[in-house]
Formats: sequence, C-alpha cells, structure tokens
Amino acid sequence: MLLPQINDPQDLKSLAVPQLVELAEEIRRFLIEKLSVTGGHLASNLGVVELTLALHYCYESPQDKMIFDVGHQAYVHKILTGRKDRFDTLRMQDGLCGFIKRSESRHDVWEAGHSSTSLSAAMGMAMARDFKGEDNKVIAVIGDGALTGGMAFEALNHIGHERRKLMVILNDNEMSIAPNVGAMHNYLSKIRSDRHYLRAKDEVEGLLRKIPAIGGKLAKTAEKMKDSLKYMMVPGVLFEELGFTYLGPVDGHDLDKLIDAFHQTDNVAGPVLVHVLTTKGKGYKPAEADSYKWHGITPYKIESGQLLKAVGEPMYTDVFGQTLIELGQQDERIVAVTPAMPGGSGLFPFAQAFPGRMIDVGIAEQHAATLCAALAMEGMKPVFAVYSTFMQRAYDQIVHDICRHNANVMFAIDRAGFVGADGETHQGVYDIAFMRHIPNIVLMMPKDENELRHMMKTALDYNDGPIAYRYPRVNGTGVPLDAELKSLPIGSWERLRAGDDFAVLACGPMVQVAEEAAETLRREGLKVSVINARFLKPLDHSMLLELGRSGTQMIVIEEASQAGSLGSAVLEFYAEHEMHEVSVGLMGVPDVFVEHGSIKQQRQQTGLTAEALCTRIKSMLAVRSYRFGKTTSSS
Amino acid sequence: MLLPQINDPQDLKSLAVPQLVELAEEIRRFLIEKLSVTGGHLASNLGVVELTLALHYCYESPQDKMIFDVGHQAYVHKILTGRKDRFDTLRMQDGLCGFIKRSESRHDVWEAGHSSTSLSAAMGMAMARDFKGEDNKVIAVIGDGALTGGMAFEALNHIGHERRKLMVILNDNEMSIAPNVGAMHNYLSKIRSDRHYLRAKDEVEGLLRKIPAIGGKLAKTAEKMKDSLKYMMVPGVLFEELGFTYLGPVDGHDLDKLIDAFHQTDNVAGPVLVHVLTTKGKGYKPAEADSYKWHGITPYKIESGQLLKAVGEPMYTDVFGQTLIELGQQDERIVAVTPAMPGGSGLFPFAQAFPGRMIDVGIAEQHAATLCAALAMEGMKPVFAVYSTFMQRAYDQIVHDICRHNANVMFAIDRAGFVGADGETHQGVYDIAFMRHIPNIVLMMPKDENELRHMMKTALDYNDGPIAYRYPRVNGTGVPLDAELKSLPIGSWERLRAGDDFAVLACGPMVQVAEEAAETLRREGLKVSVINARFLKPLDHSMLLELGRSGTQMIVIEEASQAGSLGSAVLEFYAEHEMHEVSVGLMGVPDVFVEHGSIKQQRQQTGLTAEALCTRIKSMLAVRSYRFGKTTSSS
Repeated sequence: MLLPQINDPQDLKSLAVPQLVELAEEIRRFLIEKLSVTGGHLASNLGVVELTLALHYCYESPQDKMIFDVGHQAYVHKILTGRKDRFDTLRMQDGLCGFIKRSESRHDVWEAGHSSTSLSAAMGMAMARDFKGEDNKVIAVIGDGALTGGMAFEALNHIGHERRKLMVILNDNEMSIAPNVGAMHNYLSKIRSDRHYLRAKDEVEGLLRKIPAIGGKLAKTAEKMKDSLKYMMVPGVLFEELGFTYLGPVDGHDLDKLIDAFHQTDNVAGPVLVHVLTTKGKGYKPAEADSYKWHGITPYKIESGQLLKAVGEPMYTDVFGQTLIELGQQDERIVAVTPAMPGGSGLFPFAQAFPGRMIDVGIAEQHAATLCAALAMEGMKPVFAVYSTFMQRAYDQIVHDICRHNANVMFAIDRAGFVGADGETHQGVYDIAFMRHIPNIVLMMPKDENELRHMMKTALDYNDGPIAYRYPRVNGTGVPLDAELKSLPIGSWERLRAGDDFAVLACGPMVQVAEEAAETLRREGLKVSVINARFLKPLDHSMLLELGRSGTQMIVIEEASQAGSLGSAVLEFYAEHEMHEVSVGLMGVPDVFVEHGSIKQQRQQTGLTAEALCTRIKSMLAVRSYRFGKTTSSS
Repeated sequence: MLLPQINDPQDLKSLAVPQLVELAEEIRRFLIEKLSVTGGHLASNLGVVELTLALHYCYESPQDKMIFDVGHQAYVHKILTGRKDRFDTLRMQDGLCGFIKRSESRHDVWEAGHSSTSLSAAMGMAMARDFKGEDNKVIAVIGDGALTGGMAFEALNHIGHERRKLMVILNDNEMSIAPNVGAMHNYLSKIRSDRHYLRAKDEVEGLLRKIPAIGGKLAKTAEKMKDSLKYMMVPGVLFEELGFTYLGPVDGHDLDKLIDAFHQTDNVAGPVLVHVLTTKGKGYKPAEADSYKWHGITPYKIESGQLLKAVGEPMYTDVFGQTLIELGQQDERIVAVTPAMPGGSGLFPFAQAFPGRMIDVGIAEQHAATLCAALAMEGMKPVFAVYSTFMQRAYDQIVHDICRHNANVMFAIDRAGFVGADGETHQGVYDIAFMRHIPNIVLMMPKDENELRHMMKTALDYNDGPIAYRYPRVNGTGVPLDAELKSLPIGSWERLRAGDDFAVLACGPMVQVAEEAAETLRREGLKVSVINARFLKPLDHSMLLELGRSGTQMIVIEEASQAGSLGSAVLEFYAEHEMHEVSVGLMGVPDVFVEHGSIKQQRQQTGLTAEALCTRIKSMLAVRSYRFGKTTSSS
C-alpha cells in the first residue's frame, strides 16, 4: 500500500511511474469505498486520478498554482494534500468541503462551485506573478463542459491576446454534468475521434517533402500552402488561432503520456492548452456505464452499484417536471430551456414526452435567458428552468432582455433557499433580493408542491410579462395534488390561520415553520395568524393594509437573504404607505455565506426554526407590553 | 435628392445600385448635419450606411427580422424606416431613442443597449420561426467588439450546434468603442490583412490538381490533406469549425459586393456568417481620423470637426482618473481593469502614466471581475473600473469570486444613478440593490468630487475585503480638492446640518438636493438635519441609533431603485433593532424603467428634486401632527 505514506505532494516525487500507476488504483478504491458511505461527486473524480497525480508529480504546489474549475473534481487533490483522513466527513457540517476550500489547505488556491471561472483566475494569477517578477507556473484544469460558459471564452480571448505563460488543461470527458452540447463540443469530438492526429505532425512533414516544388506565379501560394498544411493537419487549430499552443490529445489515463506532455510544455512560450481525454467514472463499472447518473450521488452498494436513495415524498423538482408535461400537452407553445441541467431540473420526462421542446444550451445561463426573451417575443411560452444560484449569471440579461422587454418568460427557479451539502457557492438565497427591484417581474413561491402546480398554471395564464416561481431543494410536504390546475390571482396571499395576537408572514418551507410555531404558541394561549406570502412581488396590498391597520405586530420569515428580500419589501410597503406605526420583525438569512451541512443544520445555524420563531414572537410581544403596557390575550 | 422619397424600406426596392450609392451619400450628409446639432453616435452609423441599405434592399423587414447588436448603430435603419423627420429630437425626452425601440416602429424587433445580445436574440427568433413553421430570415448584425462578450460565444456555440438557418453579419471595424483587444481581434485582423484570401478558393483548387496522386500507405492521408488544404486556404476556419458557413471578407462600403454576398447566402443551409469590413466614421474626415473620439459625441462644427463641449466643473470621472494616478504613484500594486471602456472610465491618463498597469480586457465584464479577484488574492490592488449598468453582467462573479473570497478588489462604479440620453438600458440605479445583500462588501458614494478622492484613499487603505465607490455621470460640484487624502472610518456618516424637526438621509447628488430643501424649509422656520449617508454598507449604526432614539421623522432620498437600496437598508436596520416606532419615508427611483432625456428631466420625472422633498417632509410632519397632536418647532 502506497497511499498511507502520501501525506503531501512531496511524497510523490520519489515514486517511479509504475508506483504512480499502483497509487492511482489505490486512490480509486479509496474513492469508491469512501463515497459509498458519504455520497459525493464520484464520476468526475475517478476521471482525473492520473491527471491529478501527474500534476502533483510534475509541479510544485502551492508555489505552482493549480486551479480546478468548479472544484468538485478535486477529491484526488485533497487526498494528495494531506486530507485523506477527513473523507468520512465529506460535505458534512464542519467536515471536508466538497469543493476547493482555501481554509482547508495552502494547496487550495482558488475556490469555486460555479463553472468556467478558472481561466480568469489563472490569468489573474499569471499577471500578478509577472507584476511581482516571480516565475511560478499557473495551471488551470477545466472541463470541456465548463469551456462553453461565456466567461471562459472571455478569458481565452484575453489570454490568447496577452500571451503570458500559463497552462490550460482541457479535461475533455464529453460531459458537463449532462452530455455536453454545442459547437465547441462537436469540434472537440472531431479531434477525439481522429486519433491518428496524434502522429500526424511527422506524417505531414514527410509528405510535404514529396510534393514537387512549384515555380512561376504560384510559387508563393504553394509555399504558404506547405506552411498551412502542416498547421492544418495538427489538431486544435481553433485554439491555435486564438493564440494558444495546442498539445494533444493526450490519453488522460496514461501517466507516462501525461508526464511527457507536461514536460513538453516547458519549452513553450506563452499560453499552452493541453487537451487531455478522460473517462468519467473510470475504473468503476457502474459509473463508467452511466457517468451522468454517477456525477453526484447518494451512498451506494459497491458491488451492485445500487444507489441508496432516501425514501420520502417526491421532490419539488419532480412535481415541476411532471406538471410541465401536463401543461405542455395543453399548450404547444411551451418550450423548456436549461443551461446544462436537464436532469437536475427534472426535465427529462418532458424532453421524452415532447422531443425538440427541451432546449439544452450547455453551461450558458446568459444565452439561455436572452434566448427565452426572444422566444417569448415571437409568441412562444419559454420556461427558463434554472437553479437559483446559477441564475446569478443571468442577472443582466434578466434586467436588460427579459424584464425591460416585458417578455412573457416563465422562470422555474429550483434550489431556492438552502441547498445543503453543496454549501456556500450554491446557496439559493439571493434571487429575491436581486430580482425584486427589477420592474415588470412577478415573483412567487409555493407553500407546498400542490401550490407549485397552481403557480405553474398561473404563470402560463399570465400574459403581461415575466413571471417566476421558485421552489426549494427538498421533498414536498406530501399533500394531495389537485387534478385541476387553476390560476392564482396575481398578488394574492393566503391566510392559513387567524389570530389577533401576532401575525407571521412566511413563504415556501417557512410557512410550515410558521404553522408549527403558531401551533406551539396556541397551546400556550397565544393566537398567531399565519399568512402564506406566496407572491413576493407584487405583495398583497389589501392584506398588508388590513394587517397594518389592525395594529398586530408581525414577523416576516424567509429562507433568503434578510437584506433586500421579502421582509424588506414589507417594510418598504408600510413606509410607502406612511404606516410608520406598524411593527415588523425580520427573520432571514444573515449577512454571511452559509457553509455546507444539511439543510436542517443550515436552518438551525441561521435561526430559521419554529423554536427560534416562537422566541422572537414572545420577545416582540414582551417588548411592546413593557413599552406600551398593552396586554395580549394570553396575559 | 432621393432621401425625401424614402419613407419605408419598400421605397428602396425600385432603385438601381447606382441610386443606392447616391442615397448612401445623402444619408451620410443627413447624419453629419443632424448630429452636429444633437450629438449622438456618429462614427458607428457612418460606418454602416451601405450595410444597412443593402440589408433593407435585399430583405423584407419586418417579416425578416433585423437585429442590431447594441443598437446605437441603427440610425440608418431609423432613417430608412420612416423616422428621419424626428432626428432633431434624437436622445431627448419624448424624442427619438438613440437605440432600437420597439414602441417607435414595427421594424424595430429587438431592443438593446448592452452589447452581445443579438446572437441569442437571433437564435430565439429562428427557433420560434421553426416551431411555428414559418420561413422568414433572421439576421443579426454584430460588431467585432461585441463578439468578445461571453454571451455572444455562448450563442455561437449553440447556433453552430443546432445549425438552424440564420445569418450573422460580423461588422468588423476593429473597434469596440475603444480599439478592440483580444485573440479574436487578432484572428480577424489576420483575415483582414490577408486580402488575397478573397480569391484563394479558385487558386487552391487549381493547385490541388497539380499535386500528383500518392499511393500506398499514405493515400488516405494525402486525400485528407487535399480536403483540408482547400478548407485551410479559405479564411474563417474558426467560424467554420464552430459550425458556420463563413463568407467574406466583404468590403462593407461596396454596395454591389454586399448585395452579392447576401445573395450567396440564400443557398447555404444552416447558419452563415458574413464577415463585412467597415470603417467607422466613413465619409467624414474628422471621424475617420479618430473614430474613438467620434463614437458618441456632443454637437460639433461640421467644417472644423470641433466638438462643442459644455464648459463646467470637471466630471467625477475625470477626478477619479487623476486621483488614481496620485494613488498609483504611491502604491505600485494598483492596477486598473476595464471592460473596453478605458476612455469613458477616465483611465487614459493612468495608462499613460503607468504603461502596463491598465488592463483592457475587451467587452468581458465577467472575466474582468474574476480577474480582479485573482489579482487581489495574489497581493495586487486591482481597481475594477466599470459603469454601474455594465457591472450587472458581473453580478455572479462579484458574489462568487470576489465577495465569497473576500478579495481586496476596489470597485470604481461610474455612471451610478441616472445617465440621461442613453436612457433605460443604461440607468445605473440597481447596483445598490444588487450588491447590498452580498456579504463582505463595503459600499460608498461621495457627496462631491473631493469626497470621492478620500473614498479612493479609503478603499486603498482598506484590506479586509472588497470595497466600492460609486459616482454619478455629472460634473462635480466645484468644491476645492484637498491635497492630502485621508481614509474615512468605515461606516461613518456625516451630519452636514443639524435640526430637530426632521432628518434627511441622502447619498451622492441627493445630498445637494437635501441641502437645498433644508435651506428652503429653514426660511420657513423648519429645522431639518441633513446627513450624508456616504456608506451604503455598512450603515452608521451609532448615528442611526441616535436618530431613531431622538424621535425625529426622516426621509431617505437616493437616485437608486427605491426597492432594495439605501432606504430599504435603513428600514431593515430599525426593524432588526426592534425600533419599530421610527418613521422613515422613502424617496427613490420607482418601479419602472426610466427612459431617455436629460438627467435633470429624469430626476423631475421621478420626484427626486428639492421641491418634491420639501413637499414630502411637510406631508410627513402634517400627518404626524394630525395623528399624535405633536407640534414641531415651526408650529
């Protein structure tokens, strides 16, 4: 066993290549075993075992900067940099982060979670190096999927122009999370399938010598042809045209070839792109066979490859996917647009039911949003299915192309609220705050999966501009699903429970929290109203006016940034209506990035629980009682 | 004169090409004359006269969709579609919009203002066409500058993959607004300079016939070579690799050649890219000589080309640029990063003073932001100089790469607040609302240009994470500039005027508005405090507590979205501190997109004036007096 001796990248340096091969197998077994218990990103990490070993073998981390795009494929890097003993805590609260995390190790130099940032990061680090007169290497490892993100191209364009020394490793496994799409993918596939390219350079040169010299008027053209011929027969011309030296394709599971390719880059001036071919799930049959399913997984049985899924009510995502089929049958103008998340967004059943009506644009949130605007303006009914956190990429397009055009785009915002194990890069807690101030948009959040269905119908029936429904990454509440879908009046809230002592305004899963708190307090003799504030914009004016006039104190509770979200909107409403005497308390996500853990833990950590709500209600009542001598019905 | 007879694109159809040439000259004279009075985007429009004529000559607008990227180069389109009589009102309130505007004409099918959206729009319209079974053409006109924006690449990647019929016209003038940068630009330059490419296809085919057949083992390779040779000698291989048929380069001032090229596209299946070479400012010598200066201009003297600049105090932008030089001398870690706006952001003097320390990344806000994060993490002191409206493109990178890393990035946010003639696509009224909820960031806005200088020093001295100063697109107030720069305490507001009757919290130019209102009311016997709320985050807790405890009513006034900005933050503060008795009124930009006009008109339109503020103060005082029988010192 070699792995127990590897606690630092330096421990690799004395190994011979055959030992590295052995170590690779040990690491595979380690990953397969550990993740069978914790779950996590298995397939992508199995794909980069040799690549990561070769990097740490050839370069000196952390002086040489290794930047992993997204960072969910950095488990091997974590194993090699002294963290293998912490894998039992992977993605758990206070445990090993599923992504790169600077606070974990000096070898972690760039954190991500969203894709396509590594090239910009590499360029920044290369520029800083040159400004400081240092000479370390800068290496970005980026997947072919992440390469389709627009910001990666912006960075390529800048890097190719400036021609500083840096290395881009294109980890080509033909996948984003879903099978990759796009013209760039087609281009890479062409290189991949044409393996003879690997030796073409020699052949071409030999062949060129056989062409007889051509004289006369065509001599110059012939000369030019010879040059370009050699150039053409070598793959990667697209990257060469953009200013990179292209090397590859290289078999990403052959350590000798990887090490050789990295050594070849030493003599290249300017930026170099090494095209490495890997297989997601390599070495574990079930994952190789279905790397999409095995991208991010729950615990599983190693022998059978059976995933041990938690049983429970269907996820909101599933209800969305099924309901979209019902609506798609009624209205053939509906098309679903996804930025590379067809599975995660629950769209596969829809795609199967309506071939051609699910549009996967690849990792391209900006394009997806503007595409939806244009589809809507031409009379289609596009559903932009996107995770809250990834929608951040499309903020400008939502303002400038969708809302300013007042286009009839429907947003299906998944993973709204806490996301659990993916942690701080993926929390869906900002979308209310970054969308609420945009003119023309309607924003909704359902209290349960049945209401989600009615909201989807509401969105379809609404023809006055953009409209969004956001829903959490949790199981539904298990309520019965109404067969008949009906539109909700825009801006209408729902009073679920009446009570004169206090009012709680809640949205999404916090409605259930509010109900629990109200029930607890009822037993203590306090009558608390619970209001399902299902429209985040526009608010329910008549209900707010009524509440305000009643003199009841209230709390707004939401699993969203406390700054700028629903609570803020309610405060603005009363300020705008000069109802300055209304008392509104706020319970939301505080002004920090909330780290990985379970969703339950994240709620506890941020005080978004029924217990905390009870305490706050009693505290507000006590303060008022103290200040004004008012009594509540319980006292 | 032909122009008077042209009121609709149909009027062009009966003209012969020589008449179109004549018309082109008339249009040039029209533009040069009209814009000498109104100002506007001259150079880009002079560059596309023939291109726009050829489009309307060959295609049927509005059935065929013409999409102009950005849309400031659509003046010729406006002239040809019945709007030439409105050019005296260009960019004025209720006058002709400087961009494409759907409410102006059925020929305007896609509005923009931000760059790089046209390809996504074209793809959406082409998809909708195919879903509906129609067969119109879809044509996007995009500049080489806009092509560097990441979302344009996301769209290219999708279009090249799906291979629907649509046409992209690459209007290559080697400029964004500033001279273009980037590897794509270098690639296009290579095609441009290699004019013989235009006839290479024939030559190559002739040449290929001269190569003797090669037998044996190399036969297949030789065959392949012949194919790729032909392919290689034709320009545009990069676009061909991405799935487009490339045509060009075409002289964009030769109507015959343009029309011919457009006819050639008829027989192409799938997406086609026509590479058109144009000269910005074509036909007006001063503009041809310095198309950068003549991109967007004030009125001018036609004969001399002298710009008639309004005299006044230096712009905030200029003070920023000069002060950055002072700081740059003291601290060589400072680098300025701009997404294609070196001039507009006032960075040219800095670039001249410190060669290599101004980094123009092209139209690439996302890359710019993440680049800054990496530069900061490696010990540099990057200043991300960006317009508020364009910063919208980098929202996710600000959250995910800058703030989550708590990187020491300084933001110089120009054009914060109303922008005047550029109108609704460019208003800088959302940045407070979309940044305030992001953890770790400090946000400032100065009351005058002198305070801006101190804020720049404050930002430089601050080493605890990202920090931003935002400033308006107006002349400074003319205050003397302190020679010595000093840091402001983070989160400290400034009480400019004391008064017990009322308090106004204002930021930026609204501080002056508040002062005016307070002065007016002083004459009427009311004592109004004026507070310069120069930190938008964090707020000045002790001042807010003091104000709240004093029982004084207050108004927060800001030239920013009323939803989610400073007023909202103040409301949240009092709610969080359970000071529910504090009365806060809000004055901000209402929930609509504010159209073009002067900044003064935009303030009037939205009620952000001293008069309106006086009225609101009196109204709030009257209501309280009525409700509580309280008296103010004036009554």
